[in-house]
Amino acid sequence: MDTKLCKRLGIQFPLFAFSHCRDVVAEVSKAGGFGVLGVVGHTPESVKIELDWLDAQVGGAPYGVDLIVPNKLDAKEGGLTPADLEARVPPEHRRHVEGILKAHGIETANLWSAPVGEGFGDNLREAGARGVLEEALRHPNVKLVVNALGVPPPFMMRAAREKGVLVGALTGAREHALKHVQAGVDVLVAAGGEAGGHCGEVATIVLVPEVLDAVQDHPDVFVLAAGGIVTGRQMAACMAMGADGAWCGSVWLTTREAETNPVVKQKMLEADSRQTVRSRSRTGKYTRQLRSPWTDAWQAPGAPDPLPMPLQGLVSGPALDLIDKLSQQGDEGAKALATYWVGQGVGLMNQPLSSRQVVHEFMEDFAEAAERLAAFTR
Amino acid sequence: MDTKLCKRLGIQFPLFAFSHCRDVVAEVSKAGGFGVLGVVGHTPESVKIELDWLDAQVGGAPYGVDLIVPNKLDAKEGGLTPADLEARVPPEHRRHVEGILKAHGIETANLWSAPVGEGFGDNLREAGARGVLEEALRHPNVKLVVNALGVPPPFMMRAAREKGVLVGALTGAREHALKHVQAGVDVLVAAGGEAGGHCGEVATIVLVPEVLDAVQDHPDVFVLAAGGIVTGRQMAACMAMGADGAWCGSVWLTTREAETNPVVKQKMLEADSRQTVRSRSRTGKYTRQLRSPWTDAWQAPGAPDPLPMPLQGLVSGPALDLIDKLSQQGDEGAKALATYWVGQGVGLMNQPLSSRQVVHEFMEDFAEAAERLAAFTR
Repeated sequence: MDTKLCKRLGIQFPLFAFSHCRDVVAEVSKAGGFGVLGVVGHTPESVKIELDWLDAQVGGAPYGVDLIVPNKLDAKEGGLTPADLEARVPPEHRRHVEGILKAHGIETANLWSAPVGEGFGDNLREAGARGVLEEALRHPNVKLVVNALGVPPPFMMRAAREKGVLVGALTGAREHALKHVQAGVDVLVAAGGEAGGHCGEVATIVLVPEVLDAVQDHPDVFVLAAGGIVTGRQMAACMAMGADGAWCGSVWLTTREAETNPVVKQKMLEADSRQTVRSRSRTGKYTRQLRSPWTDAWQAPGAPDPLPMPLQGLVSGPALDLIDKLSQQGDEGAKALATYWVGQGVGLMNQPLSSRQVVHEFMEDFAEAAERLAAFTR
Repeated sequence: MDTKLCKRLGIQFPLFAFSHCRDVVAEVSKAGGFGVLGVVGHTPESVKIELDWLDAQVGGAPYGVDLIVPNKLDAKEGGLTPADLEARVPPEHRRHVEGILKAHGIETANLWSAPVGEGFGDNLREAGARGVLEEALRHPNVKLVVNALGVPPPFMMRAAREKGVLVGALTGAREHALKHVQAGVDVLVAAGGEAGGHCGEVATIVLVPEVLDAVQDHPDVFVLAAGGIVTGRQMAACMAMGADGAWCGSVWLTTREAETNPVVKQKMLEADSRQTVRSRSRTGKYTRQLRSPWTDAWQAPGAPDPLPMPLQGLVSGPALDLIDKLSQQGDEGAKALATYWVGQGVGLMNQPLSSRQVVHEFMEDFAEAAERLAAFTR
């Protein structure tokens, strides 16, 4: 496809694959799309390993990284140690989590002694994020860095600019788009409320034209549509509205390459679009995820209100890690509770494919949709 | 446009305009679209007046009606009088409503003495709905009858079939689609959670392909996309995915013809897409509406849980009628509280147009979107 964005990034098809799995990223970039590795939770050292591997795989094809860089150096929790943060978690929240696990026959004695999402706290602080970003920008195939939450800070903009790398930002509302553009962001990922993971409230079909309208005086800004998109026809729909491409996360979770917990992968293949829930129970901000007794328990009468980010992650993280581990060992309670971030598009994800097949199906389905629409006006 | 649905209905452009305002319905049908008059709340006598007027206006152009026909003759509330229903409303709910109004300086002494939404209760019972339906089917330009809630009952299917009139049904989830098709429904209005009025949770961009997949073995079933659609580019997006047309309600509310409360109309023109809320506070089922202190008060801590339909309407109806009346008289408290059903597309509704202009803008915008998409594959 011969668009400005495809030319700028050197890709054939503006399908952006957000994944924590490097194999997915490599396969998509090799198939003509653009893989984006989620590196939240990584250290500069671990990101180097991943990107060295990717560089060796992709044969010069471009890819990107997605991280969370907080905007404020002096953020409230900026100077706090993990122990300081832990101390701020009310006992009620820990008791609630223990209650959920116990009700599903899961032992909680060692629950709080495991290390919490290593590097996560670091990465959320500017120093950690800066190290990861600098490492990423040392890799010549990295052509896009995306800030997953909030406005990219000036050091991120500067560092990327110096390397000629585009900067993207997740955009859940018109106001975000305006702030991002003011900060110099090149690629707005307009993510509707049907998206998996962190999401706003406005649906993709409204948000995409609303964001495009908001940035119409900035012809150099690219807008990717995200939220619910798992097929080429949906991508075509968004590009008919004016989007420059599609950003997809969920659809890769059920691919053969994905490192998704097999229990969760099977649930996703069976789920319809109503089996997701938008809840603050995982990170403290709204994220969409597969519904399970775990998410239900946070919405039950009398459940404590989730804590603000990053505190809620300290409560939910250890429990979800344990559920993940035990469910893969066949524990029935853990299998019931198991969940992961996914968008409403899960209702259309019904068979496990390779990432390359997904890209090819997108291309074919896109072409059919374009032909379908063209036929209406002949 | 030369599609099967356009031919079947005798229209040029498969844009369906749901409105309670007969002028909108007439203008859209005359402009080449298909107007659908919402007749919930009507009696057979009042519907005759409206449809006689429409017949005189449209010059033979087809149009439809939208009503609520309950599926069960012996529905729980079926045999109850309005007084029986009123007696089931807990005092707490009336006190909550009085509290909201008083906090906005509105006198509540006569609040509960006004007659509640005349005919509404009747229409919801089968006898009432049957009379309205039979009257509608006496009008030869009526080519579609739509059931706004639930599966159309057998008598509705039979009566429409006898006249060669298509039957439609609002469809908020894949399961609804399967039930409707089994009942013989011809036109599925797949309405995403971003829609105004009664709505489900699944977003349009996911629901439309999901419903299309579910009914792919029924080639005679038409699928209209609804929810958030207020522009031709969004309609084109949905038709690229395979929809047979678009069903829009919100976009007509700010037209010149619409009988929308001018205070609310102005709020809609100014609102962005985040200023709607999905709440049970209006009818007892989830409906999306403009956010105001009225809707906030039903989500505040300590607010009573909305009652089931139709009881919640007995609580909210008189208050919203009063707010509507007083706001148009310039009462500041009522102006603040004023709200109405509208979808997230309200964020894209920024100027008052005639209904005819809206149809023409849809046509142009549709053509541009089709051209945009076609250019990607050349």
